[in-house]
Amino acid sequence: MKLIKNAIGRLVPAQVNGQKQIPFKGVDKFKPSGSKAKPKINSCIDFPEDGNKVVKNLKEALKKAGLKDGMTISTHHHLRNGDALTNILFDTINSMGVKNIRWFPSASFPIHEHLIKYLEDGTIHHIEGSMNGPLGRFTTEGKMKGIGILRSHGGRYQAVQDGEVHIDIAVIAAPTSDPFGNANGVNGKSASGLIGFALADSEYADKVIVVTDNLIPFPCVPWQIQGNNVDYVVQVDSLGDASKIVSGTTEVTKSPDRLLIAEYVAQFIDEAGIMKNGFSFQAGSGGTNLAFVLYLKERMKAKNVKARFVRGGSTKYLVQLLEEGLTDYILDGQTFDLEGVRSMRENPNHVNTSPFTSYNFHGKGNFASIVDVAVLGATEVDVDFNANVVSHSDGYLLHGIGGWQNCLYSKCTILAVPSFRDRIPVIIDEVTTLCGPGELIDVIITERGIAINPKRKDLIKLMKDSSLPIKSIKQIRDEVYSICGGAPSKPKLNRNKVVAVVKWVDGTVIDSVFQINKTN
Amino acid sequence: MKLIKNAIGRLVPAQVNGQKQIPFKGVDKFKPSGSKAKPKINSCIDFPEDGNKVVKNLKEALKKAGLKDGMTISTHHHLRNGDALTNILFDTINSMGVKNIRWFPSASFPIHEHLIKYLEDGTIHHIEGSMNGPLGRFTTEGKMKGIGILRSHGGRYQAVQDGEVHIDIAVIAAPTSDPFGNANGVNGKSASGLIGFALADSEYADKVIVVTDNLIPFPCVPWQIQGNNVDYVVQVDSLGDASKIVSGTTEVTKSPDRLLIAEYVAQFIDEAGIMKNGFSFQAGSGGTNLAFVLYLKERMKAKNVKARFVRGGSTKYLVQLLEEGLTDYILDGQTFDLEGVRSMRENPNHVNTSPFTSYNFHGKGNFASIVDVAVLGATEVDVDFNANVVSHSDGYLLHGIGGWQNCLYSKCTILAVPSFRDRIPVIIDEVTTLCGPGELIDVIITERGIAINPKRKDLIKLMKDSSLPIKSIKQIRDEVYSICGGAPSKPKLNRNKVVAVVKWVDGTVIDSVFQINKTN
Repeated sequence: MKLIKNAIGRLVPAQVNGQKQIPFKGVDKFKPSGSKAKPKINSCIDFPEDGNKVVKNLKEALKKAGLKDGMTISTHHHLRNGDALTNILFDTINSMGVKNIRWFPSASFPIHEHLIKYLEDGTIHHIEGSMNGPLGRFTTEGKMKGIGILRSHGGRYQAVQDGEVHIDIAVIAAPTSDPFGNANGVNGKSASGLIGFALADSEYADKVIVVTDNLIPFPCVPWQIQGNNVDYVVQVDSLGDASKIVSGTTEVTKSPDRLLIAEYVAQFIDEAGIMKNGFSFQAGSGGTNLAFVLYLKERMKAKNVKARFVRGGSTKYLVQLLEEGLTDYILDGQTFDLEGVRSMRENPNHVNTSPFTSYNFHGKGNFASIVDVAVLGATEVDVDFNANVVSHSDGYLLHGIGGWQNCLYSKCTILAVPSFRDRIPVIIDEVTTLCGPGELIDVIITERGIAINPKRKDLIKLMKDSSLPIKSIKQIRDEVYSICGGAPSKPKLNRNKVVAVVKWVDGTVIDSVFQINKTN
Repeated sequence: MKLIKNAIGRLVPAQVNGQKQIPFKGVDKFKPSGSKAKPKINSCIDFPEDGNKVVKNLKEALKKAGLKDGMTISTHHHLRNGDALTNILFDTINSMGVKNIRWFPSASFPIHEHLIKYLEDGTIHHIEGSMNGPLGRFTTEGKMKGIGILRSHGGRYQAVQDGEVHIDIAVIAAPTSDPFGNANGVNGKSASGLIGFALADSEYADKVIVVTDNLIPFPCVPWQIQGNNVDYVVQVDSLGDASKIVSGTTEVTKSPDRLLIAEYVAQFIDEAGIMKNGFSFQAGSGGTNLAFVLYLKERMKAKNVKARFVRGGSTKYLVQLLEEGLTDYILDGQTFDLEGVRSMRENPNHVNTSPFTSYNFHGKGNFASIVDVAVLGATEVDVDFNANVVSHSDGYLLHGIGGWQNCLYSKCTILAVPSFRDRIPVIIDEVTTLCGPGELIDVIITERGIAINPKRKDLIKLMKDSSLPIKSIKQIRDEVYSICGGAPSKPKLNRNKVVAVVKWVDGTVIDSVFQINKTN
């Protein structure tokens, strides 16, 4: 496998699964040429006049959609770890004897461990999408037939829009749908809030199958997915385990260290003058980030500051901000708890967004760069402020990118991370996998110190009299190394075998994940 | 000019403005091949990171958009007869010395008479879009440099989607916008309800300019037009005359004949068993159609019948249905009065639709064919049930098609028309311009009789014991001819000079409009 050193010094393959790649050229250095993907023109002649596209079952829909070997099938992670549908989908594909599918999920979850047998028997050739937990482990150990491709939410939209990934059949789990295929995520027993991750797929896939456990008469309002893009509708008893559909870390951390980090973040945003009337922020869903929202809220109330908008993933904490009048809007990419679902259903100021509006880098701008401050996590951060979100220091690929890369474009990007986890340093010399270039990362906030990127002279100046423990990143690294007994031990990697690549938001390849020897 | 006889026997040109045409092949006979238009891929690199796309003025925006001779410029008719912007736009284009523009409006109104001087001096080469009133007269008299092309709302979306019309610059009048270009029609002093006619343009045009007289901080919610598709935002003092923006025939007719027609329509729908729980209907905006809604409402209340949805153009009469619980939803393509605007702003069950969802014939189905009954008007209907909506018996092109052709696909299409107007028969031997094939038109309801299309044996059977004056269409024609003194006199047309063509919903040419001699 031919590897090329890209602009940030990482070795990446020239080809992935037979497709030529463009190595990362630097932030804002690669400009696409050419035109968007051009889906086939359809005609109403080929669709039922009464709008009823319901077919008997998923197998029938797949048959009508022309399923065959080597196709690309997409699914979406709105059902998260409660998703039964994707497993049933591949059981069905396997029962039809179809092989070598490129599975193109918006993300995978531990529940999809069920699919390992299909990766082994050749039903699935490879996965393009996040490989959380068991599938990531399987991939890192070099067991997947093809090479995995990890993309951000925006990168996934971009890849479909630009024609880099052509989806043959999109299978959309819809908590509510009508027979025409208009669908949403806010209603029904499997309500997941929204289903915007399927937007690109509905627009560009050859065939689109909506699967629902809540079929209602036309029209399904709101239609987050438009029936005019849908070929078939399948009714099932259940899309999955509702109690796990709205899952994820949705409770505030109880760890004193993490609470301290959260408090530092809020103080930083306040003291740097970012927290002012009409400001905006985005916070991830982890426990530290949720705690940060609570601390910031106290400060907003004390200073009588109102945000113009906050970005979700929404939780009850963001919903409270909205309902207490501390923000005009929640612009939401996914709802992380039932309060988020309820709010989106009831409140027109809790707005459904999509990877297109929020994150697509190959649009005429996107929302991510308009946000005043984004508070994100990371598995590792290095002394150049480069960060990793997909793998750990042991080399295992265990997480997806989500919207993380896209959010780095905010006006101020803060990574709120513990300085070490399980006695393994998080602030280190060089990240195992580089997902975000340091030049886009402005501040690292740990429980033992805050490092401001030297590029951000404005922030350094603003914070020069702060009581916060502002240090250099190397100082924090040194402290952590001394606590943990040095740098994390390097995993034994097979540097000749790339098991997955990480794309940058513009479709170029920013880094590789290498095979790890299981006996390590 | 080479003319070809199409499948419905009308002479149509083989080429229009140098572009090869497909003659109408019959209802549901032409299936497109190929792919949708493929817009250029953009990059966030080329757009301001803070999302502020505001430029100094319209001229600056047109310059930045690369305006030059021969381009296609689109506008939209949401401001109706209050539209000042389109006139200012062409004043600006003219002042820049640019010539030979193809103007591609979603519709034009009498206020655009201002543009005749630009049609004369070569600023505008020709119009593709409805030519109501003065522009239609100008065109019919053979004075336009190019040939006009009339499309339905759905046909306009289809033409853009399919790449038949490539828009260089779309200029979107937005009653509210943010600096990113997210825009809507429900808020602001020029609120027009929605701006969905600009959807295709925002998706497919090379450059998109949003012009607003109500610029608000990001985010503009709801975003009926997505800023991610917008290049420039221009702020102006006023988009036009608000009192004329929401205009059109929005009062119930007072004519006893028209009221009788309206009553017949309601009775027909009731007796034919169409009016039942969960049904749906669409009515145009004319005074007769509004009256029909009131009569139908009485019957719905009397029989305790609730509609699932009604299609707008909305007026206060439809809003009352919604607010009184007589329908679950209004699915609205344009708001015809201020009550419609208010309802759409306040009520999530008053839903904003677009020509894509409602009418695009080259999608995976559309809403039009799901509607149980559509009640429409016509300028002429012939004994084969073919109908005309664009011209009168004097040969003058005076009206646009709107969604009329698209609505013919409803399960039951009723044309509610007076049997004559100003002593000129409406029910005649052959329409002057054929806009809708008779096979899609089920019932003609006039004040002196109701004709059911012989193809609809089911309806004939259902109505056989009705007290309604059901007659053959020829019988109605005969009566009308005897009242009016025979058939309308034929206009003196120059059959060698086509001044405009009428497209069918699938992009084929269904009929031609010929030059009329002004001395007639």
